Amino acid sequence: TDSTSTASGAIKLAVIPGDGIGQEVTTEALKVLEVASPAGVKFEQTRYDLGAERYLATGEVLPDSVLGEIREHDAILLGAVGGKPNDPNLPPGILERGLLLRLRFELDHYVNLRPSRIFPGVPGPLADPGEVDFVVVREGTEGPYTGNGGALRVGTPHEVATEVSVNTAFGVERVVRDAFARAQRRPRKKLTLVHKTNVLVNAGSVWWRIFQAVAAEYPEVTTDYMHIDAAMIFMTTDPARFDVIVTDNLFGDIITDLAAAITGGIGLAASGNVNPDRTTPSMFEPVHGSAPDIAGQQKADPTAAVLSASLLLDHLGHADAAAAIETAVVEDLAARTPGAARRTSEIGDAIAARVAG
Amino acid sequence: TDSTSTASGAIKLAVIPGDGIGQEVTTEALKVLEVASPAGVKFEQTRYDLGAERYLATGEVLPDSVLGEIREHDAILLGAVGGKPNDPNLPPGILERGLLLRLRFELDHYVNLRPSRIFPGVPGPLADPGEVDFVVVREGTEGPYTGNGGALRVGTPHEVATEVSVNTAFGVERVVRDAFARAQRRPRKKLTLVHKTNVLVNAGSVWWRIFQAVAAEYPEVTTDYMHIDAAMIFMTTDPARFDVIVTDNLFGDIITDLAAAITGGIGLAASGNVNPDRTTPSMFEPVHGSAPDIAGQQKADPTAAVLSASLLLDHLGHADAAAAIETAVVEDLAARTPGAARRTSEIGDAIAARVAG
Ligand SMILES: CC(C)[C@H](C(=O)O)[C@@H](O)C(=O)O
Ligand SMILES: CC(C)[C@H](C(=O)O)[C@@H](O)C(=O)O
Repeated sequence: TDSTSTASGAIKLAVIPGDGIGQEVTTEALKVLEVASPAGVKFEQTRYDLGAERYLATGEVLPDSVLGEIREHDAILLGAVGGKPNDPNLPPGILERGLLLRLRFELDHYVNLRPSRIFPGVPGPLADPGEVDFVVVREGTEGPYTGNGGALRVGTPHEVATEVSVNTAFGVERVVRDAFARAQRRPRKKLTLVHKTNVLVNAGSVWWRIFQAVAAEYPEVTTDYMHIDAAMIFMTTDPARFDVIVTDNLFGDIITDLAAAITGGIGLAASGNVNPDRTTPSMFEPVHGSAPDIAGQQKADPTAAVLSASLLLDHLGHADAAAAIETAVVEDLAARTPGAARRTSEIGDAIAARVAG
Repeated sequence: TDSTSTASGAIKLAVIPGDGIGQEVTTEALKVLEVASPAGVKFEQTRYDLGAERYLATGEVLPDSVLGEIREHDAILLGAVGGKPNDPNLPPGILERGLLLRLRFELDHYVNLRPSRIFPGVPGPLADPGEVDFVVVREGTEGPYTGNGGALRVGTPHEVATEVSVNTAFGVERVVRDAFARAQRRPRKKLTLVHKTNVLVNAGSVWWRIFQAVAAEYPEVTTDYMHIDAAMIFMTTDPARFDVIVTDNLFGDIITDLAAAITGGIGLAASGNVNPDRTTPSMFEPVHGSAPDIAGQQKADPTAAVLSASLLLDHLGHADAAAAIETAVVEDLAARTPGAARRTSEIGDAIAARVAG
């Protein structure tokens, strides 16, 4: 069955604006999504007020019934999740593990897709980055993110706390296959595996063997391997060398924030939590957090959320509409006056106007 | 007992040049160490030919008897360890886990000290880094480096491989205390904890609680906390903000390579694997690897090894001699002609000559 349309022909979209700037940037992403949607394509939105506010008011993070409803949608657009730092009523991990990661795990978002480009005219921290255009395929359902582990004698001098990284041949193979297929479709056809095989020998070994095995099926794809620490160096000294990177959940988390930083900031970094098998809705969200310090002030850059909406359209098969958003963003970025701050809604309006043509 | 001198008054130094450029850079580090040593301070060197070559020839990585001998020294100077990439006779991890990490763990090097400075005149990838001078205190004996974990049904579609990060109150507290004491001694008195408390909730919780508890004893030290992914961003956009960073073994591995990259490259990054209790010899080594591609060609920059020798002298109580090496390095770096390559030995000679005055 084609999961991208309902009987009425509308695309059912679950919208989770979340906390802080998540609300503001989602408004702009939806604005641009409406304008960009091809003639005849309608979005039927359901809004879910999940996040810190709901948790603090009700103790609810993600009720099973809500998860059940969300499952019935074609895609999810998420803003950002997270409360004020060090809020004693909001222990770290409650929302991250209970909401964001629960969605990624329950909906089997095993491909966490994070493209990085240096857009023309966008200032960044590197003096001479070259032409940067790569995509990180971050594994999304395993590794140190599984929530395995525990703690013993908590709060005593004898406390022992563990975190278990779980890596399965099943989980590694499917994401590695996805990455090879993506590399094969790109002009440079290059795939880099990033891991730490010299220390994490068990996990590293299964990643390495499966990477080699699948590589044999893709003779046109050039492969290389890099330890995560070495990747830090290349990402800052020669980021243009990367085309597709495949890596585990935690290394992917780390490397994509670095990628965002060097390509002009977290305000531009989009992501898709994708289930390529399409048995569940995929989820699209900016890489940035909820930034409570600037929330509600129309100071956030909604571009990352807008680009996430573009990834959503692309995933649903509307490649032209997705490309139109990206083009509008590129134009908007190139037209920015350095030092001139625009309001969140102004940026959204400007991009929407360009999409409308 | 004072572990820094023997009956004869000489400092007993175990030298492990290791593989590849490790050999060349160690020669220069020893050259400078000799020149820098205060009058009356003698080094009695024992050389241990451990590394890829010995392993490939004999199957030996670190025989217990050799470890026993090394224990009897006052300090260890190590070059770099590691064979050719993808050598089928040298599975990943054999040397790293069996030699380098075994030394760090058996000798209880719980403080892995990695200073980062942007030296005047040294080019780096950042357009406008500001004044960068921080030190990373990386935990050295726990975390995902413990070698816990294993694999089931290896090589089948049902393989499961795990890596267990082990974190104890004992291990976290001692390294956090060391970091606070260091921060207290520095002019800016700032300490940043880097972790991923929102996902790795068990490990994150013990780090966070102990960090808060020890902070209460250091009212003059300003503290903050950053997730490892956010640290990627600040490290590239505002590295000057950091003073002392304390973090776990894996995050420390990652962040210190990034730190090396932004401060002018891995050719300058020194480290000390320190046991502050002085019950075993501490070990000093450049952060870089053995770089087999340029080995034996006198192309490696020995500066990181030379600066590691400076850390060694400082650890043994010879702060003035250590500072003299650092000053000589700063002068040498400032005097470098951009684009003019010098041989490994030329750089060592130049630094030694400056130390000699
Ligand atoms: C908020 C957090 C759980 C999340 C992650 O670690 O995956 C975020 O950093 C991201 O990269 O999407
Ligand atoms: C070689 C490797 C085991 C080592 C580490 O991961 O600690 C190295 O990268 C380092 O940083 O000293």
